[in-house]
Amino acid sequence: MHTTAKIATPKGGSTVRLPNAVTLDGGAVLAGVEVAYACYGTLNTARDNAILVCHALTGDHFMAETNPLSGKSGWWQNIVGSGKPLDTDHYAVICVNVLGGCLGSTGPASINPATDAPYGLEFPVITIGDMVKAQHALMEYLEIPCWHAVVGGSMGAMQVLAWAVHYPDKLRAAVPIAGAVRHSAQNIAFHEVGRQAVMADPNWHNGRYDDHDTRPERGLAVARMAAHVTYLSEERLHEKFGRNLQDRENLTYGFEADFRIESYLRHQGKSFVARFDANAYLYLTRAMDYFDLEAEFGSLDQAFSGNDIKYCVVAFSSDWLFPPAESRVLVKALNRVGAQVSFSTLETSFGHDAFLLDLPPFAEILRGFIAGIRQ
Amino acid sequence: MHTTAKIATPKGGSTVRLPNAVTLDGGAVLAGVEVAYACYGTLNTARDNAILVCHALTGDHFMAETNPLSGKSGWWQNIVGSGKPLDTDHYAVICVNVLGGCLGSTGPASINPATDAPYGLEFPVITIGDMVKAQHALMEYLEIPCWHAVVGGSMGAMQVLAWAVHYPDKLRAAVPIAGAVRHSAQNIAFHEVGRQAVMADPNWHNGRYDDHDTRPERGLAVARMAAHVTYLSEERLHEKFGRNLQDRENLTYGFEADFRIESYLRHQGKSFVARFDANAYLYLTRAMDYFDLEAEFGSLDQAFSGNDIKYCVVAFSSDWLFPPAESRVLVKALNRVGAQVSFSTLETSFGHDAFLLDLPPFAEILRGFIAGIRQ
Repeated sequence: MHTTAKIATPKGGSTVRLPNAVTLDGGAVLAGVEVAYACYGTLNTARDNAILVCHALTGDHFMAETNPLSGKSGWWQNIVGSGKPLDTDHYAVICVNVLGGCLGSTGPASINPATDAPYGLEFPVITIGDMVKAQHALMEYLEIPCWHAVVGGSMGAMQVLAWAVHYPDKLRAAVPIAGAVRHSAQNIAFHEVGRQAVMADPNWHNGRYDDHDTRPERGLAVARMAAHVTYLSEERLHEKFGRNLQDRENLTYGFEADFRIESYLRHQGKSFVARFDANAYLYLTRAMDYFDLEAEFGSLDQAFSGNDIKYCVVAFSSDWLFPPAESRVLVKALNRVGAQVSFSTLETSFGHDAFLLDLPPFAEILRGFIAGIRQ
Repeated sequence: MHTTAKIATPKGGSTVRLPNAVTLDGGAVLAGVEVAYACYGTLNTARDNAILVCHALTGDHFMAETNPLSGKSGWWQNIVGSGKPLDTDHYAVICVNVLGGCLGSTGPASINPATDAPYGLEFPVITIGDMVKAQHALMEYLEIPCWHAVVGGSMGAMQVLAWAVHYPDKLRAAVPIAGAVRHSAQNIAFHEVGRQAVMADPNWHNGRYDDHDTRPERGLAVARMAAHVTYLSEERLHEKFGRNLQDRENLTYGFEADFRIESYLRHQGKSFVARFDANAYLYLTRAMDYFDLEAEFGSLDQAFSGNDIKYCVVAFSSDWLFPPAESRVLVKALNRVGAQVSFSTLETSFGHDAFLLDLPPFAEILRGFIAGIRQ
């Protein structure tokens, strides 16, 4: 088990050391990759009832149980479980911590066997496709011939699409939620703000903060705050916070958190740095920025043509980070190549984070679609 | 002339030391306030041909001449000048550097006479209303009985509205552009991210960076980068940058600025810190956050009723920072109190910054409206 300096590695789930090195899209060859995952439900004897869930940027594999690090409920506990849309009475629902992260699988905070110290920036830049390669290696290790479905939101949706285009015979259905076929200029811009916030923190030490027994907490908190604003809609921020004051009746004419939204954001920043590694944040945001299926395949038609996958594309009306228009680009391409595709844009004020919330219409779409996939 | 450590004060324009202390909305009394301004065109003998232009967050009074600090054109050189919409052949067009800023008027980088050192955080928190109080004092000093019009975009629009509600007899017309009657939760959130970026920089030293002969440049650059993303529309970012690479043909699989949008943002951050004081950025963003006419007056109807001002409200279709919906809130209130109001939402992809660009339909609206104001 590799160590993750300062950020504790979750104790639950399973970790597999991949037998073969992974050749990354950037050209580097990564040996000794460890992949952490959790499985909810039981694989049948044909091993063909497995659903893969791909998590988002700062997610982890503990989607349907109390998170051993935070003590909070799993992030998809309302979607994955007995009798739930991804029904663990019927399916083995597996979530894999992404390559390049910090919550169980190998990433920049892992020990570089060549130096016996954390990789830091010596870790190779990875892509969404590389994350999926590691998941595919785990799939082979688990002797799963074909996923019943691959499902995920946000960065998870990018992984879903990478599965569809790189391993089209290894999944029957794909559910990209609040996703896109490429990261937009605006999204790259927000990620770059976050990375610069981390790198501006003198405690970052060019990624070698372990050597200095410190962590770029303030920079990472700012990065998280900036990102968090993009996960909510303007409408939702207005409904939830408006201009309400925090524990006071009047403005203080100072720089304390007068407004509840300020207090909330500061809390989001603080709680994030307690659970996430700064370098991992750099690597995962970079992987998203690099995602561009059109550039990779020449055209979306080429990316998606000739496969027999059933698609369920879901977008949320108030999501401005991955707006419905981005999903429509995907749906049009799928229609052009004659794929089976259903597309829902759900009306909600919850913004990008809607897929993490308990929205009955969303849950029912997932339930119906998953149940309708022919084995 | 007060000094602004490290940030040079522009040499042009005029500076007036206000004879009376200013009592601020927060209760503090600020003596020895200096107000920097520039005047383009000539006051007539009745002194009733003056137009006040209120600048935006990081603007200055050098709107219609080469900026003595940056060497760049004035920020409204296409709008203010001989034969232009704010025609200096007919009007004396005046722009005042805001109280609390760092480009000529008194602000946190000014010398506190009580300590003979820069105020830093000892400077009182100011409001949009306080900025207007200082402008009003200058108006009296210049013996201008009534502005022909008060015009401004973004934070400038807030000042325009503060003029209308606090000094309704001192202006014939008001032109709030890309503005709002209150700062939204989302906008407060983005400002708070920027402030936290500044405060996270150890070189900020709780606002006393002058004592340490340093400046929180990296934090301020991050703040500017985050803000800059909000000034452009997603559509514009896509048009202008897309996923184009910067001076390279392939991704580098690293953290350099592979994408043009990254390079552009880094440049925006760097060039901003060369011209702006970090504490002033805190104070001015705070003033915008505090702006809320409904809270101040009980209702918008009360705020705007009983005055005889002619309004021209302008919004831009792709502005998501101060979206047209915010201007509509203002227009509805003005309609309810029977004010004369014209409202234009201009179709453009340029986002919030559209008012700073050379958009002929916008210029023509200003030209027509200004010319139609009865003296």
